Amino acid sequence: MLLKLFDMTCKKSLSLALVQHACNRNYQQNLDRSLDGIREAAAKGAQLILLQELHTSPYFCQQEQTSYFDLAETIPGPTSNRFASLARELDIVIVTSLFEKRATGLYHDTAVVLERDGSIAGIYRKMHIPDDPGYYEKFYFTPGDHRDKAGTNTAFTPIKTSLGHLGVLVCWDQWFPEAARLMTLAGADILLYPSAIGWDEEDHAAEQQRQRSAWRTIQQAHAIANGIPVAACNRCGVETADDGKGRIRFWGSSFVAGPQGEILAEAPIDDSAISLVELDLTHSEAVRRLWPYLRDRRIDAYSDLSLRYRDQTETHQH
Amino acid sequence: MLLKLFDMTCKKSLSLALVQHACNRNYQQNLDRSLDGIREAAAKGAQLILLQELHTSPYFCQQEQTSYFDLAETIPGPTSNRFASLARELDIVIVTSLFEKRATGLYHDTAVVLERDGSIAGIYRKMHIPDDPGYYEKFYFTPGDHRDKAGTNTAFTPIKTSLGHLGVLVCWDQWFPEAARLMTLAGADILLYPSAIGWDEEDHAAEQQRQRSAWRTIQQAHAIANGIPVAACNRCGVETADDGKGRIRFWGSSFVAGPQGEILAEAPIDDSAISLVELDLTHSEAVRRLWPYLRDRRIDAYSDLSLRYRDQTETHQH
Repeated sequence: MLLKLFDMTCKKSLSLALVQHACNRNYQQNLDRSLDGIREAAAKGAQLILLQELHTSPYFCQQEQTSYFDLAETIPGPTSNRFASLARELDIVIVTSLFEKRATGLYHDTAVVLERDGSIAGIYRKMHIPDDPGYYEKFYFTPGDHRDKAGTNTAFTPIKTSLGHLGVLVCWDQWFPEAARLMTLAGADILLYPSAIGWDEEDHAAEQQRQRSAWRTIQQAHAIANGIPVAACNRCGVETADDGKGRIRFWGSSFVAGPQGEILAEAPIDDSAISLVELDLTHSEAVRRLWPYLRDRRIDAYSDLSLRYRDQTETHQH
Repeated sequence: MLLKLFDMTCKKSLSLALVQHACNRNYQQNLDRSLDGIREAAAKGAQLILLQELHTSPYFCQQEQTSYFDLAETIPGPTSNRFASLARELDIVIVTSLFEKRATGLYHDTAVVLERDGSIAGIYRKMHIPDDPGYYEKFYFTPGDHRDKAGTNTAFTPIKTSLGHLGVLVCWDQWFPEAARLMTLAGADILLYPSAIGWDEEDHAAEQQRQRSAWRTIQQAHAIANGIPVAACNRCGVETADDGKGRIRFWGSSFVAGPQGEILAEAPIDDSAISLVELDLTHSEAVRRLWPYLRDRRIDAYSDLSLRYRDQTETHQH
């Protein structure tokens, strides 16, 4: 039974939009698709816009090639500045994603949160980096670090904005319940995932279906486990690697789930789309009162979560 | 792309059955439903049987009443002995669940794993204990402890059987990704959840649907995050509390999911059922090779998972 909240007089609503589109080798065209999508979403009332992972370029990680490092930019830099000025112009918050050049030979897959005044509210450098056939990200992206200059642990902390505390994570992070939980424990109001994932077209349809379902299911579960909304913005379209050896059909399917994991909006698999959702952030209060997981976590028994594997137990021998 | 396994010559299959039924105030009738279901499943080839949580009694936790402690039994005790002899007779492994009396004034919600020779392979005392309207479990059940006499951390370790390492958890544990992960890190081949959950009939249909979906989704996500199968066995039927104040419609829906979260079998909401699934445990090998989450966990950044809340960060002030 979900209780009514007698003590909360004002509903804290948030209008969130996801801008999903295909990408190609033309930077300006990719940029325009994002910018146009943002303008359209803002005109419909969106206050917060989530873009795709690496939305100004093809998904270059299909092959390992040093020249692709030319795509990387500093933060601030031309692309982040472009989105910053649009954020200021439209008085909205934008979560963008880019290939960051932090220093010569030091690159990250980074989400940038731009405040309504055009300032950078914060950045998040992807912590979990995949590497599997077609997704050679470990070649390009240094995993995010998480100590500030004072030595404080800043791993998986939300970015504070005028609209709330944004738990920004990136793509592969989607598969790790630990990341979602740590964001929650640090006060995230919502989890946001720029994403770039798709199918190997050689896989049979049932396998493709399992993969897309799994991608959606595990993120819905982050919403459920933590009692907060979750949104993922994923690219669509087919992209062939420059060497002709790779080909990914990105599955779109950008979605927003509420704090019980319920799907509130979902974009198509193979077409551009703007998904706009009016979220009631106070709903998390109601859900967490009835499903009080934060109350019951057995923190006295969780220390082994910091192990690679529990080899010390007798049970690993198989 | 899921790779074929050229190096694995033998498929390790496991025939798993879930026995779902309604419970009432008649111990013998409840017991017979479980025993009959086990016999039927074994006759169909089941090697491993998962029963519901507290399947020999009504769900007495709908109210707090000291006389219900009379339902508790020692382990071994009459009920565990009954299932042990059936395990031996049928040459199968049974995961049963009972209200355990460990000492006067010390009670647990305990799963017992019975080996094919009738011995107790191990027990698991529910670690996360709920308490919300209609589920007053904190009154009855002491949370499981997790240090053995030598002081070793035994929290969330699988029970070793002739059929594999069984990651046995109980009901409310379902909602905690930490429990599933710790079982996995300690070598679990499968996660098994005896369960007792249902609807408050006063909730509207959409809320009921969200709750059941969330229950299923988060457990599918444990399969996905860890690359192993998951099974939950939940009671069905409507039960009214003795004081007439509580009434739960248990939602059945016992299910088995494969290591990508795909549903392999699902029982109905409101009827008894035996769900039998032939699992290929070697499939986890293929799934984990392609989705290597265990490789990429950021254990250098997870220590705060042992905190109740990350109050030390600036982000909690809202």
